[in-house]
Amino acid sequence: MGLEELWAEVTPPAARKLLIAATHAFAERGYHATTTRDVASRAGMSPAAVYIHYPTKEDLLFHISRLGHRGALDVLNNAATSSDDPAQCLQVAVREFAGWHARFHTTGRVVQYELSALAPAHFGEIVEFRREIERTMRAVVDRGIRSGQFTVADPAGTTLAILSLCIDVARWFRADGKRSPAQIGEVYAELVTRMVGATQ
Amino acid sequence: MGLEELWAEVTPPAARKLLIAATHAFAERGYHATTTRDVASRAGMSPAAVYIHYPTKEDLLFHISRLGHRGALDVLNNAATSSDDPAQCLQVAVREFAGWHARFHTTGRVVQYELSALAPAHFGEIVEFRREIERTMRAVVDRGIRSGQFTVADPAGTTLAILSLCIDVARWFRADGKRSPAQIGEVYAELVTRMVGATQ
Repeated sequence: MGLEELWAEVTPPAARKLLIAATHAFAERGYHATTTRDVASRAGMSPAAVYIHYPTKEDLLFHISRLGHRGALDVLNNAATSSDDPAQCLQVAVREFAGWHARFHTTGRVVQYELSALAPAHFGEIVEFRREIERTMRAVVDRGIRSGQFTVADPAGTTLAILSLCIDVARWFRADGKRSPAQIGEVYAELVTRMVGATQ
Repeated sequence: MGLEELWAEVTPPAARKLLIAATHAFAERGYHATTTRDVASRAGMSPAAVYIHYPTKEDLLFHISRLGHRGALDVLNNAATSSDDPAQCLQVAVREFAGWHARFHTTGRVVQYELSALAPAHFGEIVEFRREIERTMRAVVDRGIRSGQFTVADPAGTTLAILSLCIDVARWFRADGKRSPAQIGEVYAELVTRMVGATQ
């Protein structure tokens, strides 16, 4: 459940180490209260070493945000095409997306709560990821409506609620809590199946 | 939808003004990046005037957190006793609790995201409010289960999901968005009615 798993693709290792340090620092103190010097010292590196990889503090946040959004979108995309049965797809999608936000709750918090600190061009790029996440979940819902398996009065509002339910896991999840990420995914998949009025 | 409504009970007016200024400052830059000097200047007051009402920055956060939690608990308590019919109570509870987090989304964000900045004794007091919020929603769910109107496999998990869904409205709500707080409350009340398997 370490951040290392999420950031495994980042190279070189020094850049990965900095993103992990920055994620923890932003989560603990907030983006605006963290300096690149804080990030450097947490990573056991010099401030100059940070600038080689990330010229600005905002650059660190942008990379965290991009990798975080991409990671969440990836599990959702895989889930959305995991079965020909829309009800089955929705269950897998919720299980995986909610589970992701439990496993990577520290990253999830930074990504969700510090959006307004992104530079306009970076924010625009992240908004595209967010739209794609919404479209992907919406497509699963729409597929079930078309097949007649789901009865949904407000597909946009229902999609919003499903995503919100899963994302908010990052806020309240505690690694030492009663439920594992997989268990949360199970409970939520059942609740969302009911929300769309799926015939089982 | 202004914060003035939420803080109306705070007197004297200078103290109210400071809490409103602090809420906006904490929401924009985070608690740790905000100084009492920032709060004072936003309220158009001197730093010394802040200390008269709130000796420390943490004191400001604690008062915001306490009033915020109390406000949310109040609407939930009223809703929970609004009808003899559990399904009706749950609908009102979700409508009001979700609507509250839309109307007071700025306060909601500060209250939820800055919990870890509270001093231990203050945190303990806030945790009591959070437990009471959970107990109140849980009691509505349990009442419907006992009456046979709700079919719920996991009452604790379902209660957690209902509260999470409503609280997360504070994260994504925009005053210039497509849905009003009342409309969000309506959609969510219907979705939660389905989550508990209520017979309508």
